[in-house]
Amino acid sequence: MKQAFHTITVPTRGAGLYECTDAVAAFVREARIADGLLTCFVRHTSASLVIQENADPDVQRDLQDFFAHLATSGPRFRHTAEGPDDMPSHIRAALTQTSIGIPLHKGRLALGTWQGIYVFEHRAAPHRREVALHIIGE
Amino acid sequence: MKQAFHTITVPTRGAGLYECTDAVAAFVREARIADGLLTCFVRHTSASLVIQENADPDVQRDLQDFFAHLATSGPRFRHTAEGPDDMPSHIRAALTQTSIGIPLHKGRLALGTWQGIYVFEHRAAPHRREVALHIIGE
Amino acid sequence: MKQAFHTITVPTRGAGLYECTDAVAAFVREARIADGLLTCFVRHTSASLVIQENADPDVQRDLQDFFAHLATSGPRFRHTAEGPDDMPSHIRAALTQTSIGIPLHKGRLALGTWQGIYVFEHRAAPHRREVALHIIGE
Repeated sequence: MKQAFHTITVPTRGAGLYECTDAVAAFVREARIADGLLTCFVRHTSASLVIQENADPDVQRDLQDFFAHLATSGPRFRHTAEGPDDMPSHIRAALTQTSIGIPLHKGRLALGTWQGIYVFEHRAAPHRREVALHIIGE
Repeated sequence: MKQAFHTITVPTRGAGLYECTDAVAAFVREARIADGLLTCFVRHTSASLVIQENADPDVQRDLQDFFAHLATSGPRFRHTAEGPDDMPSHIRAALTQTSIGIPLHKGRLALGTWQGIYVFEHRAAPHRREVALHIIGE
Repeated sequence: MKQAFHTITVPTRGAGLYECTDAVAAFVREARIADGLLTCFVRHTSASLVIQENADPDVQRDLQDFFAHLATSGPRFRHTAEGPDDMPSHIRAALTQTSIGIPLHKGRLALGTWQGIYVFEHRAAPHRREVALHIIGE
């Protein structure tokens, strides 16, 4: 059995989806583990992970608009000290995913044809988001 | 350490939940790995995975109605070329899960008494949905 | 390769977030596996898991209020036999996560500075919630 660890940093410029499929695939190639499980884990509570369509960029824009609308459609927030976009960011993160596991078979991730891995930035200001990557297999 | 890989295909007939617990359990039995981790990964961006109650079928119908309502309650979509149900499908997928990990101990999945594994189809037309399965353990 | 299994029980007193980071970290320490993957899996369909900010308790209260509002904002439910809070609980569970995978490297979970692991209770009555834990690594 082998394991590989890596952390990628994804710079963001406001709320929206930032694809990191290529950086993840590069880590998988360099790890030289043909069969196993890849785990992606975002180390933040106001950014998250989603696997989404990477063909039409309008899908990512519509996702951003939907979540922006949804997360501000509820009751008033108590937690406002870190800015008006902070609590909606935690909500958007809770509604999406913190970790994603993807099987790796014969050197290929099980991703479907149109699936891309995205960091979903929920805050308005630019950030540097860390995604911890791990493979276990052989 | 042992690993096992398999892909199941779940035929769907419109938006809603389709249970695949039995097919997953059959794979686990045939893999003859008593202790480890099972990962289920859906290879699509307009279908997803949820673990839900498999006792009362009304739960699945209510879930379908809730997500149908929610995903069309926001701002207008840009991405409409693939039909009016396509962008709501991506949203419903982002709101649920692409991958689920389930511990496997002494030959049994850690599923609770009422938990079933479901493919959540979000599109109106019938599809054949692929779920990649992986076990690592011994 | 080594594996470790454990189930923690989290007593809840009504809908809201209950942190279990310390209990999970204790299991990790006792497992004496320095590098691997931790999986947390909740064995229920009306409680779920989220990783959220553990600095300001108002974040957890705002999350509770948001999900309470959201899960009752849709169409009428068919499934009401188990009480008015049961179907909203299934919806809240579907919107969050049933399992979370966290890489474990050099004896430390990949959790970010402000990330805590929470059982998200969705039902009004007190419950005892089981979270199955698993580590694979070495």
